[in-house]
Amino acid sequence: MSRPRIVEVRERVLKQNDLVARELRERFQRAGVRVISIVSSPGAGKTTLLESTLTILGRDRRVAALVGDLATENDAMRLKRSGVPVKQITTGTVCHLDASMVATALTDWNLETLDLLFIENVGNLVCPSSYDLGEDLRVVLLSATEGEDKPLKYPTIFNTADIAVITKIDLAAAAEFDRDAAHCNIQAVRPGMRVIEVSSKTQEGMNRWIASLGVLCVR
Amino acid sequence: MSRPRIVEVRERVLKQNDLVARELRERFQRAGVRVISIVSSPGAGKTTLLESTLTILGRDRRVAALVGDLATENDAMRLKRSGVPVKQITTGTVCHLDASMVATALTDWNLETLDLLFIENVGNLVCPSSYDLGEDLRVVLLSATEGEDKPLKYPTIFNTADIAVITKIDLAAAAEFDRDAAHCNIQAVRPGMRVIEVSSKTQEGMNRWIASLGVLCVR
Repeated sequence: MSRPRIVEVRERVLKQNDLVARELRERFQRAGVRVISIVSSPGAGKTTLLESTLTILGRDRRVAALVGDLATENDAMRLKRSGVPVKQITTGTVCHLDASMVATALTDWNLETLDLLFIENVGNLVCPSSYDLGEDLRVVLLSATEGEDKPLKYPTIFNTADIAVITKIDLAAAAEFDRDAAHCNIQAVRPGMRVIEVSSKTQEGMNRWIASLGVLCVR
Repeated sequence: MSRPRIVEVRERVLKQNDLVARELRERFQRAGVRVISIVSSPGAGKTTLLESTLTILGRDRRVAALVGDLATENDAMRLKRSGVPVKQITTGTVCHLDASMVATALTDWNLETLDLLFIENVGNLVCPSSYDLGEDLRVVLLSATEGEDKPLKYPTIFNTADIAVITKIDLAAAAEFDRDAAHCNIQAVRPGMRVIEVSSKTQEGMNRWIASLGVLCVR
């Protein structure tokens, strides 16, 4: 009975989100800031990868980050160690960021002073896929400890992302992670998708990851 | 503008779910079947733990499982190796199971022939928390490779669960997982919560896990 009503309301919410996301995207383009969002399941290593990334890019780029979580300011505190501006978005019980949350978080930031803005979404492989945040690039993380079948089970998030990053690759052997199967599964749901293997612990793959962000000449 | 409407519709959906869940719970009690649901983020090890559990319990109990995923029948195929009846619920784009999906999946099963029914939810630490499935016991899994801060960041799911299981404990050292901090964080969000550490790989902790299900005298 209530299913058609839900679908209708959901469509309206998504349409509203798309309008806000479009405004955001235009704002980002006018300001000349490149925006990269990161999605993954909880604990796949978004914050750790982002901390390394902000530290490396912060040396000669004007970088900032927004970070979403249901609760705690932990991630913002961790990311602030990189020395770049960071703001936490606390969503309460909402399982994803939406464009209006991003717009609100940016109200007192001057985007003209930034080259790059990272947006770390709430840890969730389902809900964030439907919400455009006005980003230029969406990155989906899959950790070696999660198992190689995740692209097949969460195809939508892989389909809406531009780059897949396999994190915690240093744990691949201990976790008996089948790298070939993981790559094969990613290509099965999103043929031609760029895949990068990284370890934030050993820094393996970090240069390739940074290069893939379209930021050239980073030391 | 649309926020109050969404809240209202969401409340109606949850109320509707609670009604179906109550009917399910009464049905389970009449049939004398104990129902245990399992929630976690993607790749935390729900299916692997469940496969071991079904194999052990299936020796002298009448056990079955329902398993939820957005896509694929992979988990049902894996779980069927345990030799017990298993049915896959494929949710499409829905980020959680609800009571009516469970009711529909059970239509052609005779619950009187079962002692235990396991329900593996979609991999998600947010959305499943709001949906009662009529279960007797809700178990939340946290893998050692996800990090010890997850209870603080996803407090609702820990608050609505009865038991926390820390999985992949064999990887704790490799992942530099701080066990004390994890236990401390769980108790911070849910004082007195029962916590069990297991490894489906080495079978460490498996007896304690089985015992915690309230099923005595299992070989």
